[in-house]
Amino acid sequence: MPQTPHIERHFTAGAVVRDVVIGMSDGLTVPFALAAGLTGAIHSTSIIVTAGLAEIAAGSIAMGLGGYLAAKSDAEHYAKEREREKREVAEIPHEEMREVAEVFQSYGLTEDETWPIVQALRKQPSNWIDFMMRFELGLEKPEPRRAVISALTIAGAYVAGGFIPLTPYIVADTASTALLFSVAVTLVALFIFGFVKGRFTGTKPMRSALQTALIGSVAAGAAFAIARLISD
Amino acid sequence: MPQTPHIERHFTAGAVVRDVVIGMSDGLTVPFALAAGLTGAIHSTSIIVTAGLAEIAAGSIAMGLGGYLAAKSDAEHYAKEREREKREVAEIPHEEMREVAEVFQSYGLTEDETWPIVQALRKQPSNWIDFMMRFELGLEKPEPRRAVISALTIAGAYVAGGFIPLTPYIVADTASTALLFSVAVTLVALFIFGFVKGRFTGTKPMRSALQTALIGSVAAGAAFAIARLISD
Repeated sequence: MPQTPHIERHFTAGAVVRDVVIGMSDGLTVPFALAAGLTGAIHSTSIIVTAGLAEIAAGSIAMGLGGYLAAKSDAEHYAKEREREKREVAEIPHEEMREVAEVFQSYGLTEDETWPIVQALRKQPSNWIDFMMRFELGLEKPEPRRAVISALTIAGAYVAGGFIPLTPYIVADTASTALLFSVAVTLVALFIFGFVKGRFTGTKPMRSALQTALIGSVAAGAAFAIARLISD
Repeated sequence: MPQTPHIERHFTAGAVVRDVVIGMSDGLTVPFALAAGLTGAIHSTSIIVTAGLAEIAAGSIAMGLGGYLAAKSDAEHYAKEREREKREVAEIPHEEMREVAEVFQSYGLTEDETWPIVQALRKQPSNWIDFMMRFELGLEKPEPRRAVISALTIAGAYVAGGFIPLTPYIVADTASTALLFSVAVTLVALFIFGFVKGRFTGTKPMRSALQTALIGSVAAGAAFAIARLISD
């Protein structure tokens, strides 16, 4: 199974926007929730900042490097499956012709109606293989060089997102003051981010903004409650 | 753009396995790296456990709730796009017929060869719409009820993964002893998890095992270095 999210083409959001969305979603949410949670148990802002920065490093590397390796795996998976289809088209063409026909028959076409397509594809093995990759297996050809750019974009967005909730803890004197500012700026940031994200993903922007802020709030609230519970 | 990863069908990994992989990848890695990182700066295991549990709560909720809302959005996006295709098929059938023909022509078929298919689909509007959804837009029909199961599976796998690196900090007396055990059990867990994941994703199991352990090690190493730097 491909490990990278599938990109659809009606919304020309672009792969970079998608990667920014993936990285910033978690980057805004998890360090925010962690810092808020720790404020429920710890009064030292320096420990919270240390934990926050460690989390940003861990999260951005896990997501970026994870994304890089997943994209690499997808590209290899595609190449391997394409080799297999190529072999099958050469070795068991009648079986593969039947598979093409089945794709169309699942959409209510008769055998007679699918026959010309099957025949036409048979004459062009390379196109036939591409057709099978997309329509039988549902695999899109991965772009080369995407993996590195994708990894850096995701990691960069995670770091950028993570510093928003953490900055108040760096500048404020007490953890409780920092928490107030962190909640305020992060909710605003989650709201704006959710709004912009909604425009790209096709969800109503206002609804996306509220949902994104809700996820951050629930995560932060739960982390706060747990940290407070165990520190009592 | 759909926000949930695309599921392919040759490997019948199943949506539940995919969700376990998504949740456990981050659940094993990020709490591990955070706890290891904090050990570079803090000697109190209780603060590290508090931070770890807060991170597990934050991460599992952010991923689970995020996945739930993304799946909901994808389902709505699908429904909306299907309505649009339905309208277009009714209102501008010739434009849509041209689009069907273009799909096939991009695979090297001539206009004459595509004609029977276009005509046949035209007679069955419902199948025609389904065909456009899959082959023009590349969208798969989302399963209803997946969103809730998916959210719970991802969150559960995150929590299960997160407790592996954290348990040594709960039971050990000193943070440095806990770190040693945490590194040992987590590397073994990442290795086993990566191996099993490789069998489902089509990557060579041994390579997947090494990659997964590498991501965890790099993330933990970076978090440790950053925490130590700022605590000096």
